[in-house]
Amino acid sequence: MTSALTPFQSNHFDTTPQSVHIELGARSYDIRIGHGIWADPQTWQGLPKAAMALIVTNDTVGPLYEAQLRDAIQSHYPRVETVVLPDGEAHKDWQHLQLIFDALLTHHADRKTVLFALGGGVVGDMAGFAAATYMRGVPFVQVPTTLLAQVDSSVGGKTGVNHPAGKNMIGAFYQPSRVICDLSVFETLPDREYAAGLAEVLKYGPIADVAFLDWLEANVLGLQQRDPGVLVQAVRRSCEIKAWVVAQDEREGGLRAILNFGHTFGHAIEAGMGYGEWLHGEGVAAGMVMASELSVRLGLLPAEQAARFKSLLQSVGLPVIGPRLPTSGDTQQAQVYLDLMRVDKKAEAGEIRFVVWRDQQVAGVQTASDELVADVIHACLSH
Amino acid sequence: MTSALTPFQSNHFDTTPQSVHIELGARSYDIRIGHGIWADPQTWQGLPKAAMALIVTNDTVGPLYEAQLRDAIQSHYPRVETVVLPDGEAHKDWQHLQLIFDALLTHHADRKTVLFALGGGVVGDMAGFAAATYMRGVPFVQVPTTLLAQVDSSVGGKTGVNHPAGKNMIGAFYQPSRVICDLSVFETLPDREYAAGLAEVLKYGPIADVAFLDWLEANVLGLQQRDPGVLVQAVRRSCEIKAWVVAQDEREGGLRAILNFGHTFGHAIEAGMGYGEWLHGEGVAAGMVMASELSVRLGLLPAEQAARFKSLLQSVGLPVIGPRLPTSGDTQQAQVYLDLMRVDKKAEAGEIRFVVWRDQQVAGVQTASDELVADVIHACLSH
Repeated sequence: MTSALTPFQSNHFDTTPQSVHIELGARSYDIRIGHGIWADPQTWQGLPKAAMALIVTNDTVGPLYEAQLRDAIQSHYPRVETVVLPDGEAHKDWQHLQLIFDALLTHHADRKTVLFALGGGVVGDMAGFAAATYMRGVPFVQVPTTLLAQVDSSVGGKTGVNHPAGKNMIGAFYQPSRVICDLSVFETLPDREYAAGLAEVLKYGPIADVAFLDWLEANVLGLQQRDPGVLVQAVRRSCEIKAWVVAQDEREGGLRAILNFGHTFGHAIEAGMGYGEWLHGEGVAAGMVMASELSVRLGLLPAEQAARFKSLLQSVGLPVIGPRLPTSGDTQQAQVYLDLMRVDKKAEAGEIRFVVWRDQQVAGVQTASDELVADVIHACLSH
Repeated sequence: MTSALTPFQSNHFDTTPQSVHIELGARSYDIRIGHGIWADPQTWQGLPKAAMALIVTNDTVGPLYEAQLRDAIQSHYPRVETVVLPDGEAHKDWQHLQLIFDALLTHHADRKTVLFALGGGVVGDMAGFAAATYMRGVPFVQVPTTLLAQVDSSVGGKTGVNHPAGKNMIGAFYQPSRVICDLSVFETLPDREYAAGLAEVLKYGPIADVAFLDWLEANVLGLQQRDPGVLVQAVRRSCEIKAWVVAQDEREGGLRAILNFGHTFGHAIEAGMGYGEWLHGEGVAAGMVMASELSVRLGLLPAEQAARFKSLLQSVGLPVIGPRLPTSGDTQQAQVYLDLMRVDKKAEAGEIRFVVWRDQQVAGVQTASDELVADVIHACLSH
């Protein structure tokens, strides 16, 4: 580890806009966080100049916010065009990525054209991958409209699409020019999506910051009620932790793996149920319960800590029990989970690597026997 | 310009294997050049380790060399799999890229799997783009089997596929782990492909090295007869010049543009005739004649120099007269060319940028009036 994470500082009731810097040399960028910051011209200052901007959004978010974003950026770009994708993880595929390329080509986009990703993680991943690969790379700006995207997917440069054989199988590491997190978008965010986003916020506790986890637990009411003062702190701290991890490991060679706490199990749930049935954050929540249980059984974590975390997840409306996955014939549930985890990107030569919670320390990555993992899965499944 | 190009040194009759280093920090790599070097175990030492290697080739090159490459690498990888694409630029598209992803997923490739691109530029670009985007990046090795790929496309990290609206519209900058140029493959290379490769070799003269151009002119017989002693020098020097350019401008922000000498016109020819009708090197050859003519008319180059270069291109069997492009209705030829050039990746906000040959200097990039360019095109077309 090359640098220590700065300690968590919370300022209750302080709703001033915040900025978090991601240090990646020539690819460094800022995350701007605040309530109503789209309306502040400063938010858009200093972005790459171009003859055209293309807003990439979806048919849920577009009607709510496209006009607002267009108003905010149109003084910076002579021409602003928009492409609208169908909403949902089920459409995060090459066929729909083509819609972005087609829009770029139809509007004669050049190598300077700036893409604005207006939406959740799916829009961000797809617009980011289009930006990474159109003419071998054009600039893009993340304008995340979900909590999940603000604290996780829009930060760190992961872009891509799904393949029938696996999630995010095709993609690139490609950094945005800026991430703009306006918390006012949460006013239109459905409860289920909001809770799914909180799963990723809560994740930052186990992986790196027990003090933050304690603070979240103490402010659970503010989280439930979407209190702007609590959210600005929660989003800012989440981004700080992610920035700290990403700055040390841009391309996921080491430390970055800890961001996948709960995700190995979670991806198996998402894939096993069929993409879109369980939201990513929901799979991660149930997956984090499994990862915590594994950590307890490996002797890395007191059982009480795992139980406290599980009830915090539950109190913000997240699932904490894994679903039984559709299976053909007599295959055992644990086997279905294990088979799905073995084709996960994070597996190496068929060996599954788990992120484990280590009490009072930064999380670690290790393998575990199929027997132990099967026991953990059975203990965390609905019966 | 941060560093000067080292002067050209030729050692006639010296066929010892050569190595050219591409300095790109953590993404640095070597190009190994020599006759019969596949058979030398040293050639394959030090490549990334993995449980599996995937050879990507096509149905022309595969039957000739796949077994030989497999023999060479199988002691390094427990498992070697192969995917065979249909040969030709016409298949350089997303649909065929999927064949590589499908092979990777079918064989349970992980993040360490090494791709070997065995073939010409199309295979290299596609395998490279698959490597750049499979699980957001796995290592790959270029094993170019055409002269064009050895001196140009396999060096520098450009990868991608075509889109119906333009060549290489979708792609990424992604560096290989090594480039292995075995000159013995030229024994099976058709005359037309060999000549097309020489177009890119000859290009390095105008853009950066008049001494090299003089040497090529003096050794035109050796080039025509595929003399190994001449070729090892020609390939090595071509790679040195490309390495010098790429090291200073990995992502094509400035100097790298000079590598596109003749390519703006050439891409218009390729696209206008329909991909595959004219080989890339053939379009570039006729395009370089146009770019030279433009340089003369801009007062940057003596007419005799342009004439000498044109006859050198001709003497190695390359086309030096542009084709009349298929057109609907009354559209003038020059207009057809201009329209095609305006959608080229190198155009910015509809403005076409031309690489020009500057006598005794490194090439430059500039715009020119449509009238002047139209005159140049008319002067260089078949009538």
